[in-house]
Amino acid sequence: MSVSKKIQRIAVLTSGGDAPGMNAALRAVVLAADHYNIEVIAFRHGYQGLLDNEHVVLEPKDVLHVLQYSGTIIKSARCKLFKEDAAAITAAQNLDALSIDALIVIGGDGSLRGADHLANHWSGQVIGMPGTIDNDLYGTDTTIGYATAVNIAMDALDKIRDTADAMDRVFIVEVMGRYAGFIGLRSAMAAGAERMILPELQKDKPLTVSALVKHIHRVKEIRGEGSYVMVLSEHQWPGGAVALAEQLDAEYDLPCRPCLLGHIQRGGPPAPADRILASELGVHAVELILRGAHRVMAGMRANQCVEVPLNESWEKKNPLTENLLRIQHEIFNPVKKKQRNKSE
Amino acid sequence: MSVSKKIQRIAVLTSGGDAPGMNAALRAVVLAADHYNIEVIAFRHGYQGLLDNEHVVLEPKDVLHVLQYSGTIIKSARCKLFKEDAAAITAAQNLDALSIDALIVIGGDGSLRGADHLANHWSGQVIGMPGTIDNDLYGTDTTIGYATAVNIAMDALDKIRDTADAMDRVFIVEVMGRYAGFIGLRSAMAAGAERMILPELQKDKPLTVSALVKHIHRVKEIRGEGSYVMVLSEHQWPGGAVALAEQLDAEYDLPCRPCLLGHIQRGGPPAPADRILASELGVHAVELILRGAHRVMAGMRANQCVEVPLNESWEKKNPLTENLLRIQHEIFNPVKKKQRNKSE
Amino acid sequence: MSVSKKIQRIAVLTSGGDAPGMNAALRAVVLAADHYNIEVIAFRHGYQGLLDNEHVVLEPKDVLHVLQYSGTIIKSARCKLFKEDAAAITAAQNLDALSIDALIVIGGDGSLRGADHLANHWSGQVIGMPGTIDNDLYGTDTTIGYATAVNIAMDALDKIRDTADAMDRVFIVEVMGRYAGFIGLRSAMAAGAERMILPELQKDKPLTVSALVKHIHRVKEIRGEGSYVMVLSEHQWPGGAVALAEQLDAEYDLPCRPCLLGHIQRGGPPAPADRILASELGVHAVELILRGAHRVMAGMRANQCVEVPLNESWEKKNPLTENLLRIQHEIFNPVKKKQRNKSE
Amino acid sequence: MSVSKKIQRIAVLTSGGDAPGMNAALRAVVLAADHYNIEVIAFRHGYQGLLDNEHVVLEPKDVLHVLQYSGTIIKSARCKLFKEDAAAITAAQNLDALSIDALIVIGGDGSLRGADHLANHWSGQVIGMPGTIDNDLYGTDTTIGYATAVNIAMDALDKIRDTADAMDRVFIVEVMGRYAGFIGLRSAMAAGAERMILPELQKDKPLTVSALVKHIHRVKEIRGEGSYVMVLSEHQWPGGAVALAEQLDAEYDLPCRPCLLGHIQRGGPPAPADRILASELGVHAVELILRGAHRVMAGMRANQCVEVPLNESWEKKNPLTENLLRIQHEIFNPVKKKQRNKSE
Repeated sequence: MSVSKKIQRIAVLTSGGDAPGMNAALRAVVLAADHYNIEVIAFRHGYQGLLDNEHVVLEPKDVLHVLQYSGTIIKSARCKLFKEDAAAITAAQNLDALSIDALIVIGGDGSLRGADHLANHWSGQVIGMPGTIDNDLYGTDTTIGYATAVNIAMDALDKIRDTADAMDRVFIVEVMGRYAGFIGLRSAMAAGAERMILPELQKDKPLTVSALVKHIHRVKEIRGEGSYVMVLSEHQWPGGAVALAEQLDAEYDLPCRPCLLGHIQRGGPPAPADRILASELGVHAVELILRGAHRVMAGMRANQCVEVPLNESWEKKNPLTENLLRIQHEIFNPVKKKQRNKSE
Repeated sequence: MSVSKKIQRIAVLTSGGDAPGMNAALRAVVLAADHYNIEVIAFRHGYQGLLDNEHVVLEPKDVLHVLQYSGTIIKSARCKLFKEDAAAITAAQNLDALSIDALIVIGGDGSLRGADHLANHWSGQVIGMPGTIDNDLYGTDTTIGYATAVNIAMDALDKIRDTADAMDRVFIVEVMGRYAGFIGLRSAMAAGAERMILPELQKDKPLTVSALVKHIHRVKEIRGEGSYVMVLSEHQWPGGAVALAEQLDAEYDLPCRPCLLGHIQRGGPPAPADRILASELGVHAVELILRGAHRVMAGMRANQCVEVPLNESWEKKNPLTENLLRIQHEIFNPVKKKQRNKSE
Repeated sequence: MSVSKKIQRIAVLTSGGDAPGMNAALRAVVLAADHYNIEVIAFRHGYQGLLDNEHVVLEPKDVLHVLQYSGTIIKSARCKLFKEDAAAITAAQNLDALSIDALIVIGGDGSLRGADHLANHWSGQVIGMPGTIDNDLYGTDTTIGYATAVNIAMDALDKIRDTADAMDRVFIVEVMGRYAGFIGLRSAMAAGAERMILPELQKDKPLTVSALVKHIHRVKEIRGEGSYVMVLSEHQWPGGAVALAEQLDAEYDLPCRPCLLGHIQRGGPPAPADRILASELGVHAVELILRGAHRVMAGMRANQCVEVPLNESWEKKNPLTENLLRIQHEIFNPVKKKQRNKSE
Repeated sequence: MSVSKKIQRIAVLTSGGDAPGMNAALRAVVLAADHYNIEVIAFRHGYQGLLDNEHVVLEPKDVLHVLQYSGTIIKSARCKLFKEDAAAITAAQNLDALSIDALIVIGGDGSLRGADHLANHWSGQVIGMPGTIDNDLYGTDTTIGYATAVNIAMDALDKIRDTADAMDRVFIVEVMGRYAGFIGLRSAMAAGAERMILPELQKDKPLTVSALVKHIHRVKEIRGEGSYVMVLSEHQWPGGAVALAEQLDAEYDLPCRPCLLGHIQRGGPPAPADRILASELGVHAVELILRGAHRVMAGMRANQCVEVPLNESWEKKNPLTENLLRIQHEIFNPVKKKQRNKSE
C-alpha cells in the first residue's frame, strides 16, 4: 500500500445521535491504527469535546470487547456551535497542538457536514464514517446502526402481531428514520405489516385517513378475521402514532393501539451486520488516511469498501429499494391482484 | 384424590386483554384433562364465543408446542354484553347443550367478574385462572403474563440506558400495568432506573414536575455527568410519557425523550416463569374441578398452589413489595444518604 | 412481463436440513402465486412427500404470519431414495397427475441436485431457492437462513465472552457450516473472537495444536490478563470442540471449556435479512416461472435478483470474503503488527 | 435498625464460577454501603486477590449501570490454596491491614466454605451471598444466576424445537447444574421437553438407554409424527449429550442430534429475577453486617429476606419442586394416563 505522508497520530470522535456499532467502529479504528503503529486520541462528547479539548488516548485494551455494546464509550453530543468559523478554527488549533495528522468523524449527516466545515479551516486529513440508524447517507448501501434498528423494530412488530392476532385488532408502530423510510420499509417487510407510511411515499402521494380506513376494511373483508399492523415513520403524521390511533378510534370507530418505539431502536447488542460493517469501515478509514485520502466518507457498496466526497453523503440520496416497495404494495397486498384473464 | 362428581367434559376460554402464557395455560388444561380422560371444548373469542356458541374441541395435538407463543390460539375479546343476565343465561344454555360439567376462564379481573356473574345463572363448576400482565389480582403472588411484561420493559430500559448514556440525556419509558405499579416497580429496579412514577405512589403523594426536575438536577450534581431514566406507569400522567417529555423540554429546558412501549409488553416468547406458572395453575384448575371446587380462582402463593373465592381476586389488593420500594427510594437514591454521625 | 406459457398451478417443497426463513419463502411463493391467480400445492416432508404424494393446498391464509417462525410448516426431510431414476419418474407422475406446471424446491445443495435430477425426467419447470444456513451455494451472495445462524452464533459468543472475561479463560465454540467457513468467519468477526478454525483455512494451512497454544500464550503476554475465545467450524477437528478443549487442558495445562451450539443455529425468529431475502426470492421464483425459466436457482447478488443454472449452485463456490480474513488475521491480530520503520 | 458496632469499611469479592447477577450484587452492596457511609474495598479475582492483596476501592460511580451485564467487574477465580490455614491467616492479615470490619463473599458452595474457613482465623464479620447458576444452596429459594441460566436453556430448547419439528427428529440438550437438577427441571418444563435426565432422578432410578428408546417410540406411536426433545443435566451420562446421541443413533437406529450449551448459560443480560434478587440480597448483606450478623448466608425465602448459618448452605439441600416433577412425569407424560374406569 502506498503512503503519501507519515501518519503518527490520528484523532477520532463520535458525533450526533448515537448508533449501535459506533463502539465497534472505534475498536476497528484503534486496532487498525495500532497495527500501523499509529496513536489514537479520542475527543469525548463529539465536537464539543473537540472545542473543549477534552480528550483521551485510546489503546487496544480500552476497546477490545466493546463490540457487544451500543452507545459510544467516548460519548456523543450535538454541537450547534460548530457551524461557526470560530469553532472550526479553535478545533483546528486544538488538533494541531496535539500534532494530529488526521481526524475520523463517526456520525450522521450533521456530523459529516461538521467534518467538511472543519476541513475548510484545518490542514489535516478529514475522513468520515457513516454512523446513524437512519441509513440516509449516500455513498454506502447501509450505515452503521441501521441493521440493529431494523432488527429491534421488527422484533417489536413480531410482539405486536402476537397480541394483535389474539384480539383481531389494529396497531400502529412508530419507528425512527428521520426523513428516510429505510427502517420503516425493511421492518414492515420483515414483519409482514399490512401497511407502511414512509416519507418518500407521503411526499409523492400522501395517505389520507379515509383511504387508510378503506384499506383496513377491505383487507378484513378479504381475509375474514385477523389483525392489521401498520408501520409509521416518525414525522409523517401530526402527533405521530398516538394521534393517528386516536383518530381512527374516535372518528372511524376502529379500535387502534399505538406504540412509539423511540430510542430503544438505538440500544442493545448491535446486530452482526453493524459490527462487521463498522469493523471493515474502521479499518478502511485508517487505510484511507495512510493513502492520503481527504474529505471523504468511507462506505460499503456492493460488498466493496469505497469512498465518496464528504458533501455527496448529504447532497445525494439513496432511493428506497424499488423491488421491496413493489412487493409490499403490489404483490403482497391482498387488495391488489393481477388480472390473468388475458394471457401475456 | 377424591372426586365429588364424575367430570367428563370441561370448557375453557381466554378473555379480556391477552397475556403471554395464556397458550401455556390452555396446553396445561388440555394435557391435564386428557390425563384424566376429560374432554375439552374451547370457546373462541372469549365470552363472545360463549354467547355465539363458537367452539372447537381441543386435543393434546392442538396444544403440544404452543408454550413458546404469546397470544391465545383460541383468540380473546372484551365482551361488554356479558354483564347482562340475559347473556349469562344464554351462555348457561350453550354450556348445558354441550353437557359441559365445568368452565375454566383465563383472564384478568373483568373476565373473572364475568365468570362469577355466569355462576349466578349456571349450575356447572366455574374456575378462574389469573391471566393478565398487570399482576393486579389477589390470591396469587404473580399473574400469568407478568414476568414476560417485566422482562420486555426491562429490556427496553436496558436499550434506552445505552443511548441515554451516550448523550447524557433524560428519558421516560411508559409501561403498562393498568392501575397497578408492579410492572413499573420491578422493571425500574431491574434496570436501575433513577425514578419511577407508580399509581400507588401517586395516590399517596403525587409527584409534581418541579419536584421531578429538582431530583434530576440533584442527581446530576451528585454524579457529575450521566443519564437519567424514569419509568412511568400508564394513566399516571395526563398525555403520558409524550406529554411529560414535552413539558420537561419546553418549560424546564431539559431535553427529554419519551418511549411508549404499549402492547409489545404482551408479545414474544413468554418468560420461563409465566410458562411454568401457567402449567402449574392449568393442572391445578383441572384438579380443583375434580375435587368439586367452584367459584374460585387458582393461584400460586409462596410456591404453593392455592385457591381463593373468585370475588376476592378483584375485591382485595396485593400491595407493592415494601422492600423494593424502600431500596429504590431510600437505599439506592443518591439524594438520600443515612447520616452516620451518631453511632446506632 | 412476458409469459411463455399459462401457469395455473405450481408445487413447492422444502427439503434437506431446515433453515430459518423457509417459512417466509413459502409465504412469499404463496402470496406471489395468489397475486398472479396461480394455485399452490405443497408437498410435505420434502421429496419423500413428493414420492408418497402427500400434499396440501397452500393459500394466503395458511401462511400470512409464518414469517416469524423458523422451521417449515410443510416439514422437511432428507430423501436418499430420490437419487434413483425410478424415484424421479414416480415424482414426475405425481406432479402430472395434479397438473402441476412448475415445481419450486427450497433447500441446500443436496435438494437442488434432487431438483436437477427430477428435471431429467419431468417436463415441467423446475426452480430452486437457496435454503440452508451454511451459505455454501453459488449464485447468491447469501442463502436463506445464513444471517440467522450468524446471529445466534454471535449471541452465544457474546455470552461466552462475559464468562470468559470473568475468569480469564479459554473457550471454544463449535459452529455449523458443513464444509464452508461463512458462519464461522462472520460470527468470529462480529464477536471479536481471537481465533477461528475454518475449513477453507484448514485446507491450505492446517492449524496444529502447538501453534494454537503458542498463539494463546502470545496473546496473553501482549494483553496482560484476558480471555481467549475461538470459533471452530464443525468437522474441522476430530472430536470437535469437546476433544480440542480436553487436549488443551490435558496436554498443555490450558483450562479450556467447549460449547457445541448444534441445531440452535437453525431455530428462533429468523433475522430480518433472512425474511426479506426469502420474500424477494420467493416472488422472484414465481416470476421466473412466469417468464418461462427452467432449471435455475433464484439468487440475490449485489442486491439484485438473479438466477443461475442449477448445477452451478453446487459446482461453483463462493470464496470467503477476503477483506474479513485479512482484517481478522492481520489487522486485528495482536501478534501481527506492521513494521513502520521504512516509509512506504 | 440496631447496630452492634460501628462499621466503616467492608470488603467484597466474587469467587468460583461466575453467575449472571454478580455485578448487580456488587452494585447493591456498594450503593447500600454508600447509603450508610461505609467504604467498600473489592478484592479482585476472588480469594486469589485476597491472598495477593490485589484490591480496588468501589464507589457508586463504578457500579451504577453494571446491572445489565453478566460476569463480574472484579473478576473471579477458583483458589484451591485457600483451604489451607496459612492462606486464611494471610487473608486475615490483609483484611486487618486495611481495617476491614466485614467481608462479603458472593459465590457458590465452594466459595462459602472458603468464607467459613476464613472465619476460623479472622475476627471480622463474614457474610455470604448465594452466587451460582446451579441453585444448589440451602437457605434461599433461588440463587443469583439461576433464573438467567434457565432462561437461556429454555431459549435454546425453543430453537431446538423449531428444527426438531421440521424434521421430526430426536434432540438432546445438555444443560448445567453441577449435581442439581434445578436448571434441567425448570427449562424442561418451560420448553415442554418430552424427557429430562436429572441427578436427583438418576440417583433413585437411573434411566437405561433401552427404557429411553422405548419411551421415544411409545410417544411417537401415541402422537403420530412429531419431535422428541430431552434435557440432560451435566455429569449424568458418560460422555454427555454427544455420547448419548451417538449411542441412540448407532445402537438403536434413532437419528439424534446433541447440543452442549456449556457456558452460554452464564452470559448475556441477567434476567429481571436475578437482578432484583441480587439487589435485595446485596442490601440485606450490608444491613446484616450493621446488625452484627456473622458467619451467615443472606437468602430469599418465600419472598422474605432471611439468613442461615453458612454451613447449612452446603450441608442441607433444597429438594426439586415436587409438583413440577409430578406434572412432568405423570400429568403431561403421554405414556401415562389416569384410568378413569372407577369413579373416585
